[in-house]
Amino acid sequence: MTIFIDMDEVIADTYGAHIEIYNAEFDQQLNIQSCLGSEVWQKVPVEHQESIRQHARRRGFFRGLQPIKDSQDIVKGLSKKYEVYIASAAMEYPSSLEEKSEWLDEYFPFLPWKKRILCGDKRILFGDVLIDDRSYNLKSFQGRTILFTSPHNVNSNGYERANNWLEIGEKLL
Amino acid sequence: MTIFIDMDEVIADTYGAHIEIYNAEFDQQLNIQSCLGSEVWQKVPVEHQESIRQHARRRGFFRGLQPIKDSQDIVKGLSKKYEVYIASAAMEYPSSLEEKSEWLDEYFPFLPWKKRILCGDKRILFGDVLIDDRSYNLKSFQGRTILFTSPHNVNSNGYERANNWLEIGEKLL
Repeated sequence: MTIFIDMDEVIADTYGAHIEIYNAEFDQQLNIQSCLGSEVWQKVPVEHQESIRQHARRRGFFRGLQPIKDSQDIVKGLSKKYEVYIASAAMEYPSSLEEKSEWLDEYFPFLPWKKRILCGDKRILFGDVLIDDRSYNLKSFQGRTILFTSPHNVNSNGYERANNWLEIGEKLL
Repeated sequence: MTIFIDMDEVIADTYGAHIEIYNAEFDQQLNIQSCLGSEVWQKVPVEHQESIRQHARRRGFFRGLQPIKDSQDIVKGLSKKYEVYIASAAMEYPSSLEEKSEWLDEYFPFLPWKKRILCGDKRILFGDVLIDDRSYNLKSFQGRTILFTSPHNVNSNGYERANNWLEIGEKLL
């Protein structure tokens, strides 16, 4: 069985980093609870939105992300049993590509370069399971799709959902 | 129809760059004719081989490649008719990832980030045609496979072959 796992907001805490950087730079107290159902940039004043949108183009942004809770243990378990690939739609941000490779070296070293995919559109993936936080990535996949809960997608319906990595473990291990 | 096109030795002249750098740095006169059927590193003295193997890890190596003759025109024609993606097994060389993105911006700007894939193993690709110079990439693909002639593969058999981009045009346009 071949499993594809997204990076941002599935194994890497992009959402939390956006909030942390925003709060530090604009002296704010935004928190995840107040953002549920939205993108971070939608929850700040219009004049601050472009700053958040540019985080992903900053050198170092992706390299500095924290792994999502329990992702390392469960992905390691999955990788012993199945063909596990990391699949990130990262091509929009060329400066992120090497950082994402280095980040995986640090936090997911058991998934070497042959198991990593950086793409633009996930419809090109050929396999059995796709775990992703974006419904637009899941909708064109031919196999089983699992929506991984992220603050922005808590109100999305229509997909099998996993709220955390322990739930992925229950489903697939 | 979805077509995947490899980068190195299919649209980007990696082979020629290896020879050019080697000749300049070791004051040699290696040429493509004398390399047919082999990798470049196999045609030099043992004590020079590691130097050639390290070219791909140098900053700037992939950014400086020349496009393969007629590739830009024919790929542009294909992209007007089909879903065309560039698919490069580049993950082994993290420093190449951003360079490959910039190189595509320069020479294939009509294929934007959504049409670009950097991966480790091409068995994950889901589509109709794969054009590649490496038989180990073609062998796991489910669709039509076209071996693009490169000096190293002139003696390979068992695959539909295209000797140049005009032949790809005849086959697919």
